[in-house]
Amino acid sequence: MELRIRVLFTSVCHTDLIYWRGQDKAQRIYPRIFGHEASGVVESVGEGVDDLEIGDHVVPIFNGECGKCVYCKSKKKTNLCEKFRVNTMKSTMSSDGKCRFSTEEGKPIFHFLNTSTFTEYTVVDSACVVKIDREASLKKMSLLSCGVSMGVGAVWNTADVEEGSTVAVFGLGAVGLAVVEGARSKGASRIIGVDVNPHKSSKAQAIGITDFINPKDLDKPTHQRIREMTEGGVDYSFECAGNLDVLREAFLSTHDGWGLTVMLGVHPTQRLLPLHPMELFEGRRIVTSVFGDFKGKSQLPHFANQCIKGVVKLDEFITHEMPFSRINEAMQLLSDGASLRCLLHF
Amino acid sequence: MELRIRVLFTSVCHTDLIYWRGQDKAQRIYPRIFGHEASGVVESVGEGVDDLEIGDHVVPIFNGECGKCVYCKSKKKTNLCEKFRVNTMKSTMSSDGKCRFSTEEGKPIFHFLNTSTFTEYTVVDSACVVKIDREASLKKMSLLSCGVSMGVGAVWNTADVEEGSTVAVFGLGAVGLAVVEGARSKGASRIIGVDVNPHKSSKAQAIGITDFINPKDLDKPTHQRIREMTEGGVDYSFECAGNLDVLREAFLSTHDGWGLTVMLGVHPTQRLLPLHPMELFEGRRIVTSVFGDFKGKSQLPHFANQCIKGVVKLDEFITHEMPFSRINEAMQLLSDGASLRCLLHF
Repeated sequence: MELRIRVLFTSVCHTDLIYWRGQDKAQRIYPRIFGHEASGVVESVGEGVDDLEIGDHVVPIFNGECGKCVYCKSKKKTNLCEKFRVNTMKSTMSSDGKCRFSTEEGKPIFHFLNTSTFTEYTVVDSACVVKIDREASLKKMSLLSCGVSMGVGAVWNTADVEEGSTVAVFGLGAVGLAVVEGARSKGASRIIGVDVNPHKSSKAQAIGITDFINPKDLDKPTHQRIREMTEGGVDYSFECAGNLDVLREAFLSTHDGWGLTVMLGVHPTQRLLPLHPMELFEGRRIVTSVFGDFKGKSQLPHFANQCIKGVVKLDEFITHEMPFSRINEAMQLLSDGASLRCLLHF
Repeated sequence: MELRIRVLFTSVCHTDLIYWRGQDKAQRIYPRIFGHEASGVVESVGEGVDDLEIGDHVVPIFNGECGKCVYCKSKKKTNLCEKFRVNTMKSTMSSDGKCRFSTEEGKPIFHFLNTSTFTEYTVVDSACVVKIDREASLKKMSLLSCGVSMGVGAVWNTADVEEGSTVAVFGLGAVGLAVVEGARSKGASRIIGVDVNPHKSSKAQAIGITDFINPKDLDKPTHQRIREMTEGGVDYSFECAGNLDVLREAFLSTHDGWGLTVMLGVHPTQRLLPLHPMELFEGRRIVTSVFGDFKGKSQLPHFANQCIKGVVKLDEFITHEMPFSRINEAMQLLSDGASLRCLLHF
């Protein structure tokens, strides 16, 4: 049930940086091939795979869909798969617990997030491979592996934002901008972008924010400003900053009675949710979203077609391109907040 | 827009005890007429009221519905009204900020929760009065003022429990048992009741639990036991204990991927929600419910009819009856956990 994929494009996401650096000692599983945003072509097909062929254009997904487990088969709304859900500790293949990569001396090189795309060839379970229309640009389609699907899916699937809604997006990196693009595509009447980096404003405006707030320029909490701007608060807020103080601002910036906050940031500290239980009685809700609540194998092809048709625009997300040999430069650009996605090609 | 109601039946709820005792000093607004669960007959009708007449059988509701504010008119799902939502600090009438009760010397006696029912006659805004079919037993209908509507509504409206679902209920007081009744009425396949008081078991079984857990009898956390009993966790859990450690157990007892916890308990301490943000990525959600998400004026009459038809059974909730003059005894019974609802009549 595995495929060997020739990777043509890959890019760096913050999650790669976090686990490459290994700030959490338990997560230091080295040597390891990082990378999970990519696109490529099926090079060979393993036993049992019947939905993909050699030559198929594909996108690997870190949050797979086996189609057979209690989660995949449940009528309940979940895109977590029993075997192939996000698990940063998983470092081998599901079938035999072994690695498909090794050093010249035969020592294992570990896998990452079901994908490992910082390599010319990778081996991935078929549950984590999505076939893409051959007419599509594989370069652009690589964006669907992670950030763009997360952001747009959080708007489309998790929040189900309606036309005319008001939206606030906290953190205007690639995921935040994908939220902006998702909200724009759904006809949100107002999209307020929030970032402490003033340079994020112009790109966000090009994609679709109607207002930009730099919290450093305010003499009051951001949520107060947003409530003033929107007659009591936005309908939806999205936290894409990975910061719990920002999460609280996002929560408080929604309208009482019906406001929904979607948490997309990763929060690796020991701090608890900065919310008092009684605050929930004001009718504000908070949920999270993994991979934009897309069931990867069954729903991503349709989403890809929406991108191909231009319902969702991908061009603005690729800010840099360079050969894979310059990956360290690409990592630095992301770390510095100077790039959205830097596409690396082989 | 006010009505004078002759109260025929009233009962004591834990919320009355909390504010009568005034543990929170800011909440000590005395003298005050407590009480919010009741039923009665319209005695006189104020200017502007056009949906109620003298002689109508009515139930007062502490979470009103004016029908005109941005909340009442919103298409979004909320039953919070701008003026008549739950506000324990509100102690006067909305129209003029004055009291309709006074001492013999003319000093004001304050209102409570838009209702104040521990009195033979009370004055209530029409937004907080629901007309009930005359065929119904006013004694039983008084239960719809608070606890039964909260519990059943949390199942019907907030969680929208489907037939065949699995449910765990933490805390088997009146609200918890109303949740059990709501889950039974929706055809839940398994209803696990949890309480540290073993005496709660038989009443809960009479209403509909399929399993009883006393956490004191376990050598492991309650959520572990529930996950073992239900192949990974229940679909829905309801916290009706007003205890944050219990809330965490309720949260963890649901199935990952789709579990929903509805918080119904009041948590007046300074403690934050005992959840780590990353725990939300396992797909468990937590929400709360005010007055069972019923819009009182527009939806409670239908709910009352469901009760009259026997879709929801009310008999088990009235454990004691006595004249209003014995209210102190009724408060003690509730405080001791010896009663569910003690109906006081004038």
